[in-house]
Amino acid sequence: MLETLILDGKRVATDVKDSLKERVETLSTQGVTPCLATILVGNDPSSATYVKMKGNACKKLGIKSIKVELPEATTTEELLQKISDLNNDTTVHGILLQHPVPSHIDERAAFEAIAIEKDVDGVTSLGFGQTALGFGDYPSCTPAAIMAIIDYYNLPLEGKKAVVVGRSPILGKPVSMMLLNRNATVTTCHSYTKNLPDILATADIVVAAVGKPNFIKGEWLKDGAVVLDAGYNKGNIGDADYDSCYEKASAITPVPGGVGPVTISMLLKQTVDSAEKYAKQVSF
Amino acid sequence: MLETLILDGKRVATDVKDSLKERVETLSTQGVTPCLATILVGNDPSSATYVKMKGNACKKLGIKSIKVELPEATTTEELLQKISDLNNDTTVHGILLQHPVPSHIDERAAFEAIAIEKDVDGVTSLGFGQTALGFGDYPSCTPAAIMAIIDYYNLPLEGKKAVVVGRSPILGKPVSMMLLNRNATVTTCHSYTKNLPDILATADIVVAAVGKPNFIKGEWLKDGAVVLDAGYNKGNIGDADYDSCYEKASAITPVPGGVGPVTISMLLKQTVDSAEKYAKQVSF
Repeated sequence: MLETLILDGKRVATDVKDSLKERVETLSTQGVTPCLATILVGNDPSSATYVKMKGNACKKLGIKSIKVELPEATTTEELLQKISDLNNDTTVHGILLQHPVPSHIDERAAFEAIAIEKDVDGVTSLGFGQTALGFGDYPSCTPAAIMAIIDYYNLPLEGKKAVVVGRSPILGKPVSMMLLNRNATVTTCHSYTKNLPDILATADIVVAAVGKPNFIKGEWLKDGAVVLDAGYNKGNIGDADYDSCYEKASAITPVPGGVGPVTISMLLKQTVDSAEKYAKQVSF
Repeated sequence: MLETLILDGKRVATDVKDSLKERVETLSTQGVTPCLATILVGNDPSSATYVKMKGNACKKLGIKSIKVELPEATTTEELLQKISDLNNDTTVHGILLQHPVPSHIDERAAFEAIAIEKDVDGVTSLGFGQTALGFGDYPSCTPAAIMAIIDYYNLPLEGKKAVVVGRSPILGKPVSMMLLNRNATVTTCHSYTKNLPDILATADIVVAAVGKPNFIKGEWLKDGAVVLDAGYNKGNIGDADYDSCYEKASAITPVPGGVGPVTISMLLKQTVDSAEKYAKQVSF
């Protein structure tokens, strides 16, 4: 048997980020600095860490990042007002509302309030619909990262059987639709799915997006399956049991260093895409 | 073996329409007549027939229907203007653009122009996204009809394996998402799918939405599968080969008299839903 290919997310991310440098420079000559506004509501420490990581990643590429920090007691109305301000701020090209917000806030209403032109994190239902129907500009970043890894390594999708384990609005559902749009036959599984191992046994491509550490076992996989692990659980552990999956797979993303880094690079890319659209619109 | 249950779409449709009569009367006492505007562009004879059928169905329930007939040579801009006029007309509660429009028109742009509050036919990407994420008001009518039949007959979905054959924006994709939201494990198949019979052999529920007469064969089905046939091909022929599927299935929709009549009743229902929302909004 051939050795399992480790799908190196850092390499893909570096490739994406390198391609962005030149684009950011060109924008700079046009007087436009790409700008991502991140909104953090409350005091969740991991959310604060994520926002900081995203800010640092922006900085390295010359993308401006604005950190909007709102107190735990922020109301839905106050958050919606803030989002509206950012929608109207022409110097802001992307808006990211860090999930989760405190439970008293209507998170869906807040996501929906983000203008589609600035929804570079792919959280609105409009963005989801456009992606699913095949013409969206900004898919959710983790699904976009999974597709970017697939394309970087030229992994075939057409006619392949893909099984997505998970059905969240920003991961399982959109990646199912994106794989479908690339002519894979897609099965979406979740907590009510019966006989998951039997379903996985038929999969050429497995997307693990379930949020349970080491959940997908190697013995469930078909020989030579491709495993894309979007899980990121406490202690840097993926949703796929790496060692046993590595044994069976033809290719696998590690955790960390797989889907994660590419996800951030997709956020940066989509912010630059948005800034370019803005620059085109104001130029003459 | 138990006899196959014929899922009687006419009965479901009658039930839906009966429930609408009272609602239309109540609206009438509030001075609101539900109104569906249908737009027909060009001279396609089957489209003209569909529009006429929908108009007649409205009439029987006291729903007003406005037929907008535009010539074959209509431009995208002219169509968009017409849709904008209907969006702004407060006496219109639903807008249906009959598919297909002449090929020189940007049909997607036209669909997208329909205000979400009036998209009772479920054709916008925003409506699709809302439905997929589980909070849409107006799903596409054929998927809504399939769900209505399932619910009328109390067919279980949770944990069941559903296979949808077809992935169109108003049928295969949305019904896949709606079944998923009801906790079925959903596989979406299409022209690139390999070994379709093997996939169907595992399905508890089969949705035929492929647009090919008699395409799904009974010998491909699992014993006791439920077959929902959304196909409607020339000569009133479904996508499922009725006789052979009837032999294997525990329940099946006939063609005609299955999904078709329920689809129209869903359009009427969603128009009344929209009129009620309008009445609530203007009342005090």
